[in-house]
Amino acid sequence: MRMVDLIIKKRDKKNLTKEEIYFIVNGYTINEIPDYQISSFLMASYLNGLSFEECANLTNAMRFSGVVPDFGDLFTVDKHSTGGVGDKLSFIMAPIFAAAGGYTPMTSGRGLGHTGGTLDKLESIPGMNVNLSLEKAIKILQDYGLFYIGQTKDLAPADKKIYALRDVTGTVESKELITASILSKKYAKAIVFDIKCGNGAFMKNLDDAKALAQNLCNVAKFIPMKATALITNMNQPLGFYVGNALEIHESVEVLKGKYIDDLVELSLIISAHMLILSNISKTYEEAYDKAKMTLESGKALDAFLNVISAQGGDIHYLEQSEKLFEKTKIYELKAERSGYINEINTYNVGKALIYLGGGRNIKSDIIDHSVGFQFLKKKCEYINKNDPLLLIYHNNKNLENVIDILKDSIHIDEEKPTKESLIYETY
Amino acid sequence: MRMVDLIIKKRDKKNLTKEEIYFIVNGYTINEIPDYQISSFLMASYLNGLSFEECANLTNAMRFSGVVPDFGDLFTVDKHSTGGVGDKLSFIMAPIFAAAGGYTPMTSGRGLGHTGGTLDKLESIPGMNVNLSLEKAIKILQDYGLFYIGQTKDLAPADKKIYALRDVTGTVESKELITASILSKKYAKAIVFDIKCGNGAFMKNLDDAKALAQNLCNVAKFIPMKATALITNMNQPLGFYVGNALEIHESVEVLKGKYIDDLVELSLIISAHMLILSNISKTYEEAYDKAKMTLESGKALDAFLNVISAQGGDIHYLEQSEKLFEKTKIYELKAERSGYINEINTYNVGKALIYLGGGRNIKSDIIDHSVGFQFLKKKCEYINKNDPLLLIYHNNKNLENVIDILKDSIHIDEEKPTKESLIYETY
Repeated sequence: MRMVDLIIKKRDKKNLTKEEIYFIVNGYTINEIPDYQISSFLMASYLNGLSFEECANLTNAMRFSGVVPDFGDLFTVDKHSTGGVGDKLSFIMAPIFAAAGGYTPMTSGRGLGHTGGTLDKLESIPGMNVNLSLEKAIKILQDYGLFYIGQTKDLAPADKKIYALRDVTGTVESKELITASILSKKYAKAIVFDIKCGNGAFMKNLDDAKALAQNLCNVAKFIPMKATALITNMNQPLGFYVGNALEIHESVEVLKGKYIDDLVELSLIISAHMLILSNISKTYEEAYDKAKMTLESGKALDAFLNVISAQGGDIHYLEQSEKLFEKTKIYELKAERSGYINEINTYNVGKALIYLGGGRNIKSDIIDHSVGFQFLKKKCEYINKNDPLLLIYHNNKNLENVIDILKDSIHIDEEKPTKESLIYETY
Repeated sequence: MRMVDLIIKKRDKKNLTKEEIYFIVNGYTINEIPDYQISSFLMASYLNGLSFEECANLTNAMRFSGVVPDFGDLFTVDKHSTGGVGDKLSFIMAPIFAAAGGYTPMTSGRGLGHTGGTLDKLESIPGMNVNLSLEKAIKILQDYGLFYIGQTKDLAPADKKIYALRDVTGTVESKELITASILSKKYAKAIVFDIKCGNGAFMKNLDDAKALAQNLCNVAKFIPMKATALITNMNQPLGFYVGNALEIHESVEVLKGKYIDDLVELSLIISAHMLILSNISKTYEEAYDKAKMTLESGKALDAFLNVISAQGGDIHYLEQSEKLFEKTKIYELKAERSGYINEINTYNVGKALIYLGGGRNIKSDIIDHSVGFQFLKKKCEYINKNDPLLLIYHNNKNLENVIDILKDSIHIDEEKPTKESLIYETY
């Protein structure tokens, strides 16, 4: 088998066999196939698409390029978000599910583009270690029902190489390549996909989001892995806070009982789907009620504190989570006119966080965990001219620039906009 | 400017500006852009196509990536063939044109795939040096009206790098990339393209050949370079001989006055077009007659002997050119039935030459110049069972295998096939 012939086959819109896909992935993993042939193949795959079988085989070839963790008899359920702004659901729904009797092995990522990363947010807690050995992580999962770790070098090394190459060769936004990348690093027996859709998501329109949701569910079933997918609204940040420590703070507030509608509702809905997938609950109503009770009882907070503590995090900072950003300066942005908040350019909010130092432009950038934004009003709410619209938590980096971006990104209008759904579709 | 953004632009079917194309070509030439980004860009260009402006700018960017030879006031006319089997026109039409008062700087290539290479054929003449310095080559051009050289490291280095990458990334057969590659190495004021079409050519069908011919002419005019393109028949080898020394021998025979219809006609027609492009002749009839007289007078033979001698070749071998393969063994292949020669799989004939050792499988293979084939009958001719069909000049390498290939490649049938045109189209 010669790699160039396989590139030509895909270029000419023919389907590759399982053996051919494994030849490509394994050859690349052990450096026998060079980057320049893989990037040509990735572009041909991007433009000509991959069939369902090709995508499924690619996913499995990438999964089996490294160690596949064995969680034994535990019925594990994972959750994967395609990335948004202010998305802190992992800190709420995972503890709810674990406290309700489930097991959720959270293998998460860093910030990507304008979106934040679960691992970066967790590292705003002093002492928190997301680089555990697999043995340690599995022990914590058995004891507390969840862990939060990053992709280690043993897990899906093919994905790590291919992802890095896609990033610099214009082949990121392919639903088949996205599917293979996501699922190559998922090791639970079931999964809930949270496909973000809107101006703060990678999927800007519903058709693309639906296509990705269906592809993810179909390939998950092929692995096999039980799967549910939700397409959720990302036309404004989730909750009120955006920024690493600020989002941990808001999550703890919710776990302590604060009601923030979009955050709480989505967390309960996702937890409910996880409870059904794991057979802990039989009906959706039963599952939702169980999730709600678990949150309200404080057991989810305990689960979160336990896992953070087990992973080395100093939970004194979570008892009074404002401590995480107590030294950060605050700039109050005021409304320039009266009216309803009509639109929030969520992508720009995510980019503005990077300008403040709260995200990365390049991989090696060091994050300032303490900066970010606190929205005081969100979409559809009325605000009077000169009333505070949001707070910028900053350490003087690019503040003027960020103020300008935010002024341009939050549109206030006389007309009240219609309220959008939180969830567009469920598969 | 970031390369990844330019890849994405082409991927999304947008047109790149002149500055962007130069950024890519120059960045690659000086190794600032890595192979893996260029190969992704090449695949996007292959699948989405390049506009005329993009192709023209790519061509010029590649031309100007190195030294562009300056032939001063000489009105130079080049000829380029897209490659065939038994194609020895360069050894006939170039001397005719030079002897008729023209100047033709022949920058040629090595064998590629199943097709032979002008440089390999010339090197079957003992002493012949095709690796001249540009200064030496220009001096020979001034003195004798022609030279034969290969691509030096100074000429179009971007093309050399891009071509090597296309070869291993499945991006060879793109009319825009082929056009840019050909014209980046052409430095004359005018050019005649001989686009081969048929089962022994890279372009198997007329539509592809037409598209390439038009693109080559349009981009040539943009450079600017006057251009004429012929689409010519490659459904059987040109002339009777295939193989390096054998083709030199047949060319010399033609220059000495032997009439071989396809070889002589095509040589005269191409020479005539070159004479018109260079304004040496006013009408096609005048040009054709001048070419014919030049060939028949022996002046073309003198021109060929002069340039070979000037480039170090031992012309004693050309005075009795059978000497070039006098030690080679001959196997006589007989017709297995009576009938008309109906079809010749010309691609297989070219591949069979490689099996004999007369071409390369990999770049580093050393060529046996003395092997090849002499057809005794060609298409549409009648042959009796057991009469000799062709001679195989060999040195025992893969002979049995080659006999089998040739038996399968020459079809004899009762029905006389209709004679095909030698030239399909002229632009």
